[in-house]
Amino acid sequence: MKTYLECIPCFLNQAVEMARLVTGNEIVHKKIIDEVAKVIPEFSLGSTPPEMARMIQKVMEKQMGKRDFYKQIKEKSNQMALSLYPKLKEKVRHSQDRLLTAVEIAIAGNVIDYAAKNTLNIEEEIEKLFRKEFSEMGKTIFHYESFQEELNKARKILYLADNAGEVAFDRVLIEEIPSEKEIIYAVRESPVINDALMEDAYACGIDKTAKVVSSGVDAPGAILKYCSQSFVQLFKEADMVISKGQGNYEALNDERRVVFYFFRAKCPVIARHAGVNVGDVVLMKG
Amino acid sequence: MKTYLECIPCFLNQAVEMARLVTGNEIVHKKIIDEVAKVIPEFSLGSTPPEMARMIQKVMEKQMGKRDFYKQIKEKSNQMALSLYPKLKEKVRHSQDRLLTAVEIAIAGNVIDYAAKNTLNIEEEIEKLFRKEFSEMGKTIFHYESFQEELNKARKILYLADNAGEVAFDRVLIEEIPSEKEIIYAVRESPVINDALMEDAYACGIDKTAKVVSSGVDAPGAILKYCSQSFVQLFKEADMVISKGQGNYEALNDERRVVFYFFRAKCPVIARHAGVNVGDVVLMKG
Repeated sequence: MKTYLECIPCFLNQAVEMARLVTGNEIVHKKIIDEVAKVIPEFSLGSTPPEMARMIQKVMEKQMGKRDFYKQIKEKSNQMALSLYPKLKEKVRHSQDRLLTAVEIAIAGNVIDYAAKNTLNIEEEIEKLFRKEFSEMGKTIFHYESFQEELNKARKILYLADNAGEVAFDRVLIEEIPSEKEIIYAVRESPVINDALMEDAYACGIDKTAKVVSSGVDAPGAILKYCSQSFVQLFKEADMVISKGQGNYEALNDERRVVFYFFRAKCPVIARHAGVNVGDVVLMKG
Repeated sequence: MKTYLECIPCFLNQAVEMARLVTGNEIVHKKIIDEVAKVIPEFSLGSTPPEMARMIQKVMEKQMGKRDFYKQIKEKSNQMALSLYPKLKEKVRHSQDRLLTAVEIAIAGNVIDYAAKNTLNIEEEIEKLFRKEFSEMGKTIFHYESFQEELNKARKILYLADNAGEVAFDRVLIEEIPSEKEIIYAVRESPVINDALMEDAYACGIDKTAKVVSSGVDAPGAILKYCSQSFVQLFKEADMVISKGQGNYEALNDERRVVFYFFRAKCPVIARHAGVNVGDVVLMKG
């Protein structure tokens, strides 16, 4: 997916938010805005949003040092998600279609995204999802039957992680997939926004049910040209790819292979691009 | 009022919106974003938002030629507002406190602002104001009694216009002020966003009830250093100043004279700064 003009002010906001995590000094914040503004002319609208976000990350690291800006937030997300995990499992146990419920939970978990809406109170958001049945959530695109079919046939499944914390929601889904299938769970190589790293995957216990690998990428989306060769190989040869989040969708949706995209549409740009409404849960065979 | 970091992405959006009024060509839009991005490092957070908006206007004129970007929109606003005018007058006629109702109408008219919320359906918004009584609108700051007192005493009143269309709402208020008082209605000197110019003042018939002058300013707020000397003189010597809109508030609220600010708080930044809620109608003796 290309970048839209509306994304650019959003990148600026993201940079300020990152700077605020490190310092309250407004002079530093303004300096960050200025440095990001300087690279805007280098942005090509032909690039994908995660590619731009990667550039922002580089600017931030240059200005504030290489660091994991969202480390504490990610740890908190992991803890919060893990505390919800038993409740999620129970939800699956008591449902009529266990796989469907697990799929809905995995997509609902994609609400954990500081990049799209930084003031989000995640617990409240998740509670809301519990009160209001998942089934009531907007589902303009929800290719569940195709997903079920492909899942039945697939032996080797590549599952692309998105955010920290969200991993515990993915775990609920992966645990519903028959254990004879090989599942590879891919995280980012280095810190970028609140995206899940190896340590988050382990913190959420996904290693108990899947093989965890790094995609090699340092962007908030699996842009293949920045992924490791082994990951690209995996991406090509897997029987099925499940991709979580907007960033992975934006990075991959022009690639020539079938991918099942799971995400919540968090901004008007992606909603328009995917043909859904903001807030929708999306399961797209793309 | 100083500019906040959150204003900067907003200026970028404003520039794109202006470019879209002229052309659908996305390459041009991106070029505009790039040019605006280039001046961001020159922005000082110590300047007021209308000062920044003035810089954006200069960039736009340099890139797209000197023009009145919002001309058609302003003409439409004037027509729409004029068509509502009889209804507004009737509302005043049937009210218990004519002046209060006219004040509420004048502030309600400040909803006509493409800078703050470009997708606003103004007619719908105004209708909503009619259905839901004005009195129900949020009024965290509403110094009506002081306003009444000062108005009774004042002989020479300077009234600062904000947007085109809104002028017809101001007219309703000015017509409630005893005709023996001298009222000077000041508009912008040259086109900037959808702010009222001399032609809009005349189109809305405000000249029937006030003397219309230009403030000499080319910014979307009466920044005194860019106003004409005669306007600054007026500003100093008037018995009372009524200032419409966020832009004038942002430009003037650090000046040392009492001003009655009438505006609707349209963004979180101004709401936080003024100590009100977004959407509030504000009548502030400042």
